[in-house]
Amino acid sequence: MYIRTIDWKDNKVRMIDQTKLPQKLVYINIDRLRDLWWAIKIMQVRGAPALGAAAAFGVYLGVKDYSGNDWLGFQRKLKQVARYAASARPTARNLFWGIERACAVALKNNKQPIFKIKQLILAEAKTIMREDMSSCRKIGFYGAKLLKHNNTVLTICNAGILATIDYGTALGVIYAACAQGKKIKVFSCETRPLLQGSRLSAWELYKQGVDVTMIADNTASSLMAEKKVDLVIAGADRIAANGDSANKIGTLNLAILCKYHKIPFYIAAPKSTFDFKINSGSGIKIEMRNAQEVTKILLKKNTAPPGVKVLNTAFDVTAHQLISAIITDKGIIRPPYIKNIRRILGE
Amino acid sequence: MYIRTIDWKDNKVRMIDQTKLPQKLVYINIDRLRDLWWAIKIMQVRGAPALGAAAAFGVYLGVKDYSGNDWLGFQRKLKQVARYAASARPTARNLFWGIERACAVALKNNKQPIFKIKQLILAEAKTIMREDMSSCRKIGFYGAKLLKHNNTVLTICNAGILATIDYGTALGVIYAACAQGKKIKVFSCETRPLLQGSRLSAWELYKQGVDVTMIADNTASSLMAEKKVDLVIAGADRIAANGDSANKIGTLNLAILCKYHKIPFYIAAPKSTFDFKINSGSGIKIEMRNAQEVTKILLKKNTAPPGVKVLNTAFDVTAHQLISAIITDKGIIRPPYIKNIRRILGE
Repeated sequence: MYIRTIDWKDNKVRMIDQTKLPQKLVYINIDRLRDLWWAIKIMQVRGAPALGAAAAFGVYLGVKDYSGNDWLGFQRKLKQVARYAASARPTARNLFWGIERACAVALKNNKQPIFKIKQLILAEAKTIMREDMSSCRKIGFYGAKLLKHNNTVLTICNAGILATIDYGTALGVIYAACAQGKKIKVFSCETRPLLQGSRLSAWELYKQGVDVTMIADNTASSLMAEKKVDLVIAGADRIAANGDSANKIGTLNLAILCKYHKIPFYIAAPKSTFDFKINSGSGIKIEMRNAQEVTKILLKKNTAPPGVKVLNTAFDVTAHQLISAIITDKGIIRPPYIKNIRRILGE
Repeated sequence: MYIRTIDWKDNKVRMIDQTKLPQKLVYINIDRLRDLWWAIKIMQVRGAPALGAAAAFGVYLGVKDYSGNDWLGFQRKLKQVARYAASARPTARNLFWGIERACAVALKNNKQPIFKIKQLILAEAKTIMREDMSSCRKIGFYGAKLLKHNNTVLTICNAGILATIDYGTALGVIYAACAQGKKIKVFSCETRPLLQGSRLSAWELYKQGVDVTMIADNTASSLMAEKKVDLVIAGADRIAANGDSANKIGTLNLAILCKYHKIPFYIAAPKSTFDFKINSGSGIKIEMRNAQEVTKILLKKNTAPPGVKVLNTAFDVTAHQLISAIITDKGIIRPPYIKNIRRILGE
């Protein structure tokens, strides 16, 4: 079954409303930046690579109705749009990268008429989308080498089709291995608080015919102790120059459990998720989200006494020492990371 | 605020229906064994020490209407009642221990008239209840020595008032430290799938005026990495002769995270939770529960696609090597466990 998370149709961003899954597969069409900002904020669209494309389309939506013909005025508008788009969420590197690419193409073509610059921004957003489709397949190609026939993979959150345009990073590796005829079993951690592992990963793996079993996050260590997990693959929202990787809260737990149980722990992410300006994980801004995501499951029913304090940290940072390898669209990066990240990614 | 989880009133077991918390504090009155069996099964009452008392009352409820006057007939009935009561849940040692105590008192007094034996069984159940109130306070007394002023404790599931008669084991240690004037902060892991950490522990700690913050289970490692947790205390459902401890799924995760982050990890449990017939954790039967506890949060709304496989392991086993000490009603037990468990518990 072909699923497309995000697309450009009839001058609108067309995307799956991920807050409605797994109950309903609903598409929404967005033609205003503020609607896109909100869709990112409440996670109708999420996942670092998908956010890269969404943000670039967002820049186009933000400037498309600019009525002036002067570069300086347009540039002011562009900066304002970029700042606003970047304020939707703080952690994923790709969001900023998508905005930067859209702005860079404008700056590079600032002698062109404004209508032409707008077209170039839209074209750049489409390019980002196409590049993601290709780079996810490269991640799959490289990563599949790490998976053997009959392996069982444990994963967290959703680094799949729904986190990218149409293929996935961590789950892309699984899809690629399955396409090679390898039999792969997957455990999907449900990923509290927002349950991307059960609502999204279990949904798409099931639709793709992959043998998936969902578990409460707490079950990971007991499975490992019973030797039922061969490796863990997770996505990333931002990777520092030394390999420290921010990803959904709970990823650090898994990396430590892997170290204890002597199981390989892999991160899968495209080059666009790397932030070469940040030396280590301590420089990564971690999003804190609404307490109600924890106290009311799917914002419906109270699961905790009213008034109780809640800490809803959305991401954690896995130190590079805990990462066996980083699977990228340019190849598999192994320690020592500072050297090998620069060598393989060519930065 | 005084909260009493389980009591004997008007010839009935009166207990809090824990499935209704934190929304409502509702008491139920039970005078038939099959209703008690069901209450244990669906976890209206849960927590190893509370199950010990509930099971002993259950034996009384099961035999109280036996109309014969002969010991042999009564003994057959008693065995049948004991087998049925023991089938409610498999992991907590105290459930079986409560049944064994009720049966032992009958056997010891088998020359007495049947009506007298019934009275003695009821008296034994009340004794178990009183002993639990006392032993939890002893656990609190010993354990409070491990807590310093301004310490932050992380805990999982509910090993508090609601898991015992009226005081708690792991949370009893916190209550005792607070009563000594120490300022203690608590992080309560929500404890998926059934959310005993948010529904029950956060509820009772909040009612008792303890500074509690609830977190998704996934957040534990990130808090430890930020040095925001001084120690972890968990309860236990069954402890083998070597100290291996079965407790709510996710406890093993925390023990491994503690080892990695160099934080003490304590188990708090009464002597009645120890199973001297089992040499190590591999001998402990682990309960597997209904998949819907994971896929429908609080059995209401689907959080995973229909048809997806689910593994709902209810407990895990923490190897004794990961446990800094076991806090019991007889004192604090430190490694080497095989020797010290027998020495301190006198078995």
